[in-house]
Amino acid sequence: MPCPLRGTARYGKGMEDDSAVIEQFRAAVDRRLADLLPDRTARPARLAEAARYAVLSPGKRFRPMLTLLTAREFGAEPLTALDAACAFEMVHAASLILDDLPSMDDAALRRGRATTHREFDEATAILAAVGLLNQAFGVIAADERLTDAARAALLRRLSDSVGFEGLVSGQALDLNDRDHVRTPDDIDLLNHRKTGVLMVAAAEAGALIAGAPPASVDAVGEFARRLGLAFQIQDDLIDAAVIAESGKDLGKDAAMTTLVTALGPQEAAAAVGAHLAAAGAALSEAGATGLLARYAFGLFEARKAAA
Amino acid sequence: MPCPLRGTARYGKGMEDDSAVIEQFRAAVDRRLADLLPDRTARPARLAEAARYAVLSPGKRFRPMLTLLTAREFGAEPLTALDAACAFEMVHAASLILDDLPSMDDAALRRGRATTHREFDEATAILAAVGLLNQAFGVIAADERLTDAARAALLRRLSDSVGFEGLVSGQALDLNDRDHVRTPDDIDLLNHRKTGVLMVAAAEAGALIAGAPPASVDAVGEFARRLGLAFQIQDDLIDAAVIAESGKDLGKDAAMTTLVTALGPQEAAAAVGAHLAAAGAALSEAGATGLLARYAFGLFEARKAAA
Repeated sequence: MPCPLRGTARYGKGMEDDSAVIEQFRAAVDRRLADLLPDRTARPARLAEAARYAVLSPGKRFRPMLTLLTAREFGAEPLTALDAACAFEMVHAASLILDDLPSMDDAALRRGRATTHREFDEATAILAAVGLLNQAFGVIAADERLTDAARAALLRRLSDSVGFEGLVSGQALDLNDRDHVRTPDDIDLLNHRKTGVLMVAAAEAGALIAGAPPASVDAVGEFARRLGLAFQIQDDLIDAAVIAESGKDLGKDAAMTTLVTALGPQEAAAAVGAHLAAAGAALSEAGATGLLARYAFGLFEARKAAA
Repeated sequence: MPCPLRGTARYGKGMEDDSAVIEQFRAAVDRRLADLLPDRTARPARLAEAARYAVLSPGKRFRPMLTLLTAREFGAEPLTALDAACAFEMVHAASLILDDLPSMDDAALRRGRATTHREFDEATAILAAVGLLNQAFGVIAADERLTDAARAALLRRLSDSVGFEGLVSGQALDLNDRDHVRTPDDIDLLNHRKTGVLMVAAAEAGALIAGAPPASVDAVGEFARRLGLAFQIQDDLIDAAVIAESGKDLGKDAAMTTLVTALGPQEAAAAVGAHLAAAGAALSEAGATGLLARYAFGLFEARKAAA
């Protein structure tokens, strides 16, 4: 494969240069994802089509961007982290397919399009999700730009972020606890396991690939954890204001207990601010105060403005 | 953890010694599986219970045995391969949970007990399956008895055996093609991807962990591929004779096209013989003609006798 990220070695600090780098990275992720997914020659073609449908839907590729920008922040050639970055998008897409299933959120729409089980069928959607999760592990295991030690470390963290203390448990907690009143601590745990945990793994992966020292890997993980919590509460604030323009199916979320319903919108907004401040402090501790920070906090501002 | 396999260094060649070693290995797998799975302190406990229910149901642990016996055949201390062996059982259990789902085979019984989605609920069953697959990768990635290179190689093969050319595609082919007449080649591909592919990975893993030469790894893989095909056709022959004592739900299988319906029972039985002969030849080529061979072919004879 020709290197999609070459020629990005010199970055200016201005906003325009930032956008160009971001857009270049995002496009590189989209191109590489298309290469890494099974194509229509696979058997059965329907399964490959469902996997491509779920992953290649328009999106900001936030988790891959965390990996690439963190790797860049610590001095790695971003290409080195491209396949690992794509692996996180596959896991994210798999988790969305599962969340939307009839036995879970029973959602008809996702990002303004039919959910995968509606566009295809339930069995195909489940198998596509399992195939994508599996492919994420396979892509990292086969990535010869990484050392064997880096691959083993990344795969271990990926597994931790998905498993019985990660995304899978987050979704199960969410489903099992819907009828109970949740404490703010329960809600933080749920929010972290439902979404933040994969952001943490994605950011840490970039630092690991760049060979950052352990304290910096941890600090970047804390940044992502706080950012994930801030995003989730912000989403809940937006949902509470019922933004009808969103393509997201709001029905089931509305019945959930969130930090907004538990604490009220004012305290929830204060929690967002506290998480963002802690996220920024963690980045400073890691000495990673460049484009990664501008991208992450910029994205947050853009979401708030859009709401 | 105390070493569950110590004291097995001296093996006799008699049948009684064989059984003792087999039973010791099987018990070691069961104990280690119980350790590697989330326990009831996990949140939510229901998810952990479903995962344990699916994996720890009584079984012969055929895939782990392939890994352990192959590792032993090539001179490895079997303990070295114990966690990898357990990982294959987790993947197998995950695949059974998924096959049984309402959107797939809609089975009520498995190994004579309620299927996981019947015993718990559908969402919990799906999440347990995804968690188990993920845990299999995590267990190998975290196995410090293996070199980083061995871990990366095993994880890559595991992913290949599960993914869009492995178990996941086998299940999708099975579901999508039910209304079509299948050619014998289609049926072989389906049989291989539905079950054989994981046996191949399990056997190859044992050889890889033992540091066997690549030609021996391949030969052991061919042995497992042929054995898997032989088992599947044998199962179809048994199903065709409608063995009512089996705890397996036969409803959907009966509607499928198998090699038995495509070729007739006599030619199907001949295909079983040809696969077994090729399996034996592959083992001879690998110089692996000890307990592994006696176990695998003995199991086959026992199944035939039971039918």
